[in-house]
Amino acid sequence: MKSGWRLQTQTGCTNTKAQVSFCCNLGPLRRCLAVVPQGGNTGLVGGSVPVFDEVIVNMSLMNNIISFDKVSGILVCEGGCILENLITFLDNQGFIMPLDLGAKGSCQIGGNVSTNAGGLRLVRYGSLHGNVLGLEVVLADGNVIDMLGTLRKDNTGYDLKHLFIGSEGSLGIVSKVSILTPPKLFSVNVAFLACSDYFSCQKLLMEAKRKLGEILSAFEFLDSKSLDLVLNHLDGVRNPLPPTLHKFYILIETTGSDEPYDRQKLEGFLLHAMEAGLISDGALAQDINQASSFWRIREGIPEALMKAGAVYKYDLSLPVEKMYDLVEEMRTRLSDSANVVGYGHLGDGNLHLNISTAQYDDGILTQIEPFVYEWTSKHRGSISAEHGLGLMKANEIFYSKPTATVSLMASIKKMLDPKGILNPYKVLPHSLSS
Amino acid sequence: MKSGWRLQTQTGCTNTKAQVSFCCNLGPLRRCLAVVPQGGNTGLVGGSVPVFDEVIVNMSLMNNIISFDKVSGILVCEGGCILENLITFLDNQGFIMPLDLGAKGSCQIGGNVSTNAGGLRLVRYGSLHGNVLGLEVVLADGNVIDMLGTLRKDNTGYDLKHLFIGSEGSLGIVSKVSILTPPKLFSVNVAFLACSDYFSCQKLLMEAKRKLGEILSAFEFLDSKSLDLVLNHLDGVRNPLPPTLHKFYILIETTGSDEPYDRQKLEGFLLHAMEAGLISDGALAQDINQASSFWRIREGIPEALMKAGAVYKYDLSLPVEKMYDLVEEMRTRLSDSANVVGYGHLGDGNLHLNISTAQYDDGILTQIEPFVYEWTSKHRGSISAEHGLGLMKANEIFYSKPTATVSLMASIKKMLDPKGILNPYKVLPHSLSS
Repeated sequence: MKSGWRLQTQTGCTNTKAQVSFCCNLGPLRRCLAVVPQGGNTGLVGGSVPVFDEVIVNMSLMNNIISFDKVSGILVCEGGCILENLITFLDNQGFIMPLDLGAKGSCQIGGNVSTNAGGLRLVRYGSLHGNVLGLEVVLADGNVIDMLGTLRKDNTGYDLKHLFIGSEGSLGIVSKVSILTPPKLFSVNVAFLACSDYFSCQKLLMEAKRKLGEILSAFEFLDSKSLDLVLNHLDGVRNPLPPTLHKFYILIETTGSDEPYDRQKLEGFLLHAMEAGLISDGALAQDINQASSFWRIREGIPEALMKAGAVYKYDLSLPVEKMYDLVEEMRTRLSDSANVVGYGHLGDGNLHLNISTAQYDDGILTQIEPFVYEWTSKHRGSISAEHGLGLMKANEIFYSKPTATVSLMASIKKMLDPKGILNPYKVLPHSLSS
Repeated sequence: MKSGWRLQTQTGCTNTKAQVSFCCNLGPLRRCLAVVPQGGNTGLVGGSVPVFDEVIVNMSLMNNIISFDKVSGILVCEGGCILENLITFLDNQGFIMPLDLGAKGSCQIGGNVSTNAGGLRLVRYGSLHGNVLGLEVVLADGNVIDMLGTLRKDNTGYDLKHLFIGSEGSLGIVSKVSILTPPKLFSVNVAFLACSDYFSCQKLLMEAKRKLGEILSAFEFLDSKSLDLVLNHLDGVRNPLPPTLHKFYILIETTGSDEPYDRQKLEGFLLHAMEAGLISDGALAQDINQASSFWRIREGIPEALMKAGAVYKYDLSLPVEKMYDLVEEMRTRLSDSANVVGYGHLGDGNLHLNISTAQYDDGILTQIEPFVYEWTSKHRGSISAEHGLGLMKANEIFYSKPTATVSLMASIKKMLDPKGILNPYKVLPHSLSS
């Protein structure tokens, strides 16, 4: 093992802590040892864990901000920067990151890019394919590819950086990132609303897109079982719309540049939605603490699920109008043997389907899979909206992608990593990845 | 030649006019004949012209809209749809295309995607890499690759569609497109402003991003020579800020959902900018006709240049603060032998540098090139912001991309098109494309 790398074995012992310098110290790759790049290790599909004897490339020492341009809002930094640190840095400059995740305290920007992380701001600012302007990437042969442009527009040749966005470290290791950051807007309003049926949730989304248009920054939904879980398992959380539970809840956030007007606009929208019978109850946060408490409910669902017992997690993209049918079908299928919970980013057609049980049970799993994948495939959905495939879902790729497309992916993997040493056994089905 | 294709020889004769069906009739590709896909033929770098004996694949009969979903705003259509027809179709549905170009009356969506077209709305809605959700593409071996997803989020495997966005038809022919379209917002305001120096233009951009934030939809700039050309060569165009010419002009457009408020916001911003000395004069369009007349000036510059004589056109991305230095250096360099004109999308750091002369002259060309490319390269700019490389600029790629990156592009071309029959001699330098 070469010095200059922070390497961990599977048991996690750290061998060196010197600053990683990708240009000089490409030890494992040069020696054709298989490696697993690891960021904050917050992924949910086993994309950053070694399977056999792969060497972990821990990116956490590559945590420098390289430059920030206040005119263009372009940030250039190393791949190991923790997302929350970048958010704090930008906040002081009057800017924000175009992505925000519950895992921001641990996840790293290189991992965010490698997994094409979505999160809470996608409905406003779009995906990383639109926001990442450039990358530096280390290939499987140890060569460093400089695609670290800082230009908003550049049509000179193939835009290869996109190959590495979302390839989960299996085509290259993201060592530097250039990203477009929007100016921070100071007027933020959050409303927590109740809907009596799923059709009203959809109708509310359409109305919000049209009437709140340019200031809409989040449109999240959760069902009554999600709120019930949070109220039962997290300390200090209260039902914002007591006394009973409603069937569905929507969290709307607006972000703009004019506080009185934005608030007036949101209030007008809510009044209209109430009169039209789309919402049955609602609360508009009166201050930042109340806004945080509303967000705490939405962001606390995964934690509440963990505390409730075993959980089977599915991260699906589906046509919005079909999304909740799956939750209901799953409930019928499992009846009393599990608690089926549905929540997610309604504005992006992204359902987090979670099935909570007292303990893991193969009997229950066979009732869930492959049914959940077949259902999603039948409705032309994606079996992984934002979590990726990693190790755990690599073999399920054919539920969302045709054979010819997957074969083309395998050809690209073969071309860029002929020895199969970059994050092996991940993303592609095992039949094609060896 | 197989039936079912509309094929043209270099002289332009049309052999068949039957509806193209890519799935069944892949004649030229199956026979390993070299082909040039051709959309509206509105490109500026010779990307859609045959060089020797390539067969033209004219896409214009693949002009069907396949589906439109009003809940999600997702449009699926064939690659030969003319952009303006899509804009009209969406207008009737209450939506807009996320891109708009001067060439919209002729250019086709397949060509827009293949060239990663930018245009007038990029500052608001971002690039096609963010807005295109899926593609169907015909590869060089005649196979049709279905990546025609209609989901906003899908992280199942490598996102291969991005390879084809901006590859100018040299990796595959875009036969179908799925694209996210924003709701139409009805409140549009346009202001035409004068600035006395370039620093004020930059300052105004920063202020506009922050103060107009979510409603800013265009920030275009032109210099006095651009306006002078338009006034002299286009009929019916009047100087909006008489009697004299100012050094710089900025066109600001805002688009929002609330007419009285948006106007009030823009008026407040303009008053503030006037008081701060950033703008020396300005006019806010009072109706749609006046707004169109302001846009006519900006969009009419290429036409005025064509009427003025020979023109050398450069489409450059540069750091905003350096952008106009190049125009001034070029003026010094050419002195009285040419009229050097600078305009473009200031909000995206994109300069259209145009050099107008009475007639084409090799002496003048040698004074312009390679100087313009070297200057751009020295300032880490792009020698083609949105026009692509095509035939005319393929050999200049190294001014914007390192050798290792270009070699990787060539490897991908070789893998996808080993016989080099898809739009040959384009994009990649001739030393690598054979």
